Amino acid sequence: MENVKVAIWGFGAMGSGMAKMLLKKKGVDIVGVCDRNASRVGKSMYEVLGVDRGDRPEVIINPNIEEVLTEGSCDVCLCATDSFTKSAFPRIKYVLEKKINVVSTAEEMAYPQAQSPELAAELDRIAKENGVTVLGTGINPGLMMDLLVVCLTGCMVDVEHIEAKRVNSLSPFGHAVMEEQGVGITVEEFEKGVREGTLAGHVGFAESIGMIADAIGWKVEKFDQQMKPIVTSVDRKSPHGFAAAGNVAGVNMTAQAWVDGEVKIDMIHPQQIEPEMEGTETGDYITIKGTPPINMANKPEVEGGLGTIAMCVNMIPHVINAAPGLKTMLDLPVPRAIMGDMRDLIQR
Amino acid sequence: MENVKVAIWGFGAMGSGMAKMLLKKKGVDIVGVCDRNASRVGKSMYEVLGVDRGDRPEVIINPNIEEVLTEGSCDVCLCATDSFTKSAFPRIKYVLEKKINVVSTAEEMAYPQAQSPELAAELDRIAKENGVTVLGTGINPGLMMDLLVVCLTGCMVDVEHIEAKRVNSLSPFGHAVMEEQGVGITVEEFEKGVREGTLAGHVGFAESIGMIADAIGWKVEKFDQQMKPIVTSVDRKSPHGFAAAGNVAGVNMTAQAWVDGEVKIDMIHPQQIEPEMEGTETGDYITIKGTPPINMANKPEVEGGLGTIAMCVNMIPHVINAAPGLKTMLDLPVPRAIMGDMRDLIQR
Repeated sequence: MENVKVAIWGFGAMGSGMAKMLLKKKGVDIVGVCDRNASRVGKSMYEVLGVDRGDRPEVIINPNIEEVLTEGSCDVCLCATDSFTKSAFPRIKYVLEKKINVVSTAEEMAYPQAQSPELAAELDRIAKENGVTVLGTGINPGLMMDLLVVCLTGCMVDVEHIEAKRVNSLSPFGHAVMEEQGVGITVEEFEKGVREGTLAGHVGFAESIGMIADAIGWKVEKFDQQMKPIVTSVDRKSPHGFAAAGNVAGVNMTAQAWVDGEVKIDMIHPQQIEPEMEGTETGDYITIKGTPPINMANKPEVEGGLGTIAMCVNMIPHVINAAPGLKTMLDLPVPRAIMGDMRDLIQR
Repeated sequence: MENVKVAIWGFGAMGSGMAKMLLKKKGVDIVGVCDRNASRVGKSMYEVLGVDRGDRPEVIINPNIEEVLTEGSCDVCLCATDSFTKSAFPRIKYVLEKKINVVSTAEEMAYPQAQSPELAAELDRIAKENGVTVLGTGINPGLMMDLLVVCLTGCMVDVEHIEAKRVNSLSPFGHAVMEEQGVGITVEEFEKGVREGTLAGHVGFAESIGMIADAIGWKVEKFDQQMKPIVTSVDRKSPHGFAAAGNVAGVNMTAQAWVDGEVKIDMIHPQQIEPEMEGTETGDYITIKGTPPINMANKPEVEGGLGTIAMCVNMIPHVINAAPGLKTMLDLPVPRAIMGDMRDLIQR
């Protein structure tokens, strides 16, 4: 059997991380990379990654997707270019119409039904027409605050209330993330950023809640989310960030979903640099009231970047095997690491 | 749409627990119960359960499966009669040949490929011939020491070693479990019981390990398991058990799987009465070395009885929707609680 053929669209931290992971796996080849960043265009993928090419064919980073993908030229394209369904849509459509499966890192694509039901229906139609599959996934949304919650309800007779909490450190991240999350700015600047929509915070609560509620059969009547500064009482310094005492060390995002007149899902997701300096223990926590109750902790948290990279790559065989259409993590078999030959997982 | 129709074969703690759970769910009816226990035969299912029948049709517990099931008379039969594939096989075959889907509680049926590959292939053939599906599941094997492990590897780039540990209390269980697990006997009696095969211990390590290894692509070269007494240093008393200091409070079962010449999977499963009397904290623990690492704890453990009941009932829609054949938890979408109408989950 031929190796699984993968293209990558978007070669930032996620796309290049997936490439590095794929190069260590058996039975899979990277056949094309599309990226518009001037520092990478025209260079060898191997050079950009700092990985020895060995006897593999050269892959030159190309800014024109038309030159990277032709009809059926690969099995799957990993699209790592967007966070929102609306902006990801035209790119995903382009790939699907080339009869190539898609795995998208766009947070909203983990459950586009939640906020863009018309675009979700359209993607489903296009994918089916072209006999291919599209899936959005990642660490969150995609696993820690939704699929893992759903999976744990599987051993429950009755569910009363769900709390998913992800407490993570921003210290490993670079300057771009520091700016997006407001690390180091004053509380006034933070509040201005929230009003004007310039702070990214976490994208995905609507998607995670939609996924959980639809999975277990709760009808959400009302959804609300909040974005608050995490104000540090001590100076905090990370490799790429600094927050003086009294300023913002990160963002605390929270959301609630009402079912039958009461809050039944709580999402809590504080992200900050150097959380341990004020006694915050990072981790992924799932607390489900019901019969029997669940009280899960994974400490420290699964690192966001690596987790998203792994989820996208590990879902490739499931996406290739799936029936055509738009799929979510709820529809496919559980994710799993790929330690053998990827070809063994493909049902041809 | 008509309600989902369920029959139950075996009305002990598991079968009757599933019935109680089903009676609280919407869109599903119990249409028949088969059980040979003299104390239950001929009685109303509602009377045995202590549940008000309301305006539901009567269900009389019948010892003859031929009178409980006719071809296509229900959507699924929950088979809660056995622990082993070999003993469950003729019953499951009977149900499949009536063109009825099966969910089995038999521990070995969670992954019959592991120890009975011929019977597994035969069940797959029979199920396909009759256009129905058979799944074995439960809390363990089925979720805590296998499917949940697999799911968590989904966010990993690389896996080096897996340890799954389930530390649970036997205190809620009755006399039968005390005897099967050797609670209260002397160390000499325990060792005799191990030699003669009269102590049950835990059934399922081969299945859990087979499931994990096949899912992530590890080839197991060698498998070993041990059964040791948990000797108490204090008198321990539970509602249905008593172990004097120096005697056996439970069973510690362990297993290892070798991959590429080293132990890559460790299973640790001590079960005992009143574990907290000697400082043992019960829980489900999954520790995976690799990138990124996983360090999960669910404390206290998911109660085995309730967990198995919930898993079997919650998988009903997935089993009805699945393509015909023998399926495992690896093949189907993630389990999930059913808080809405079960009919909404059926793809007709």
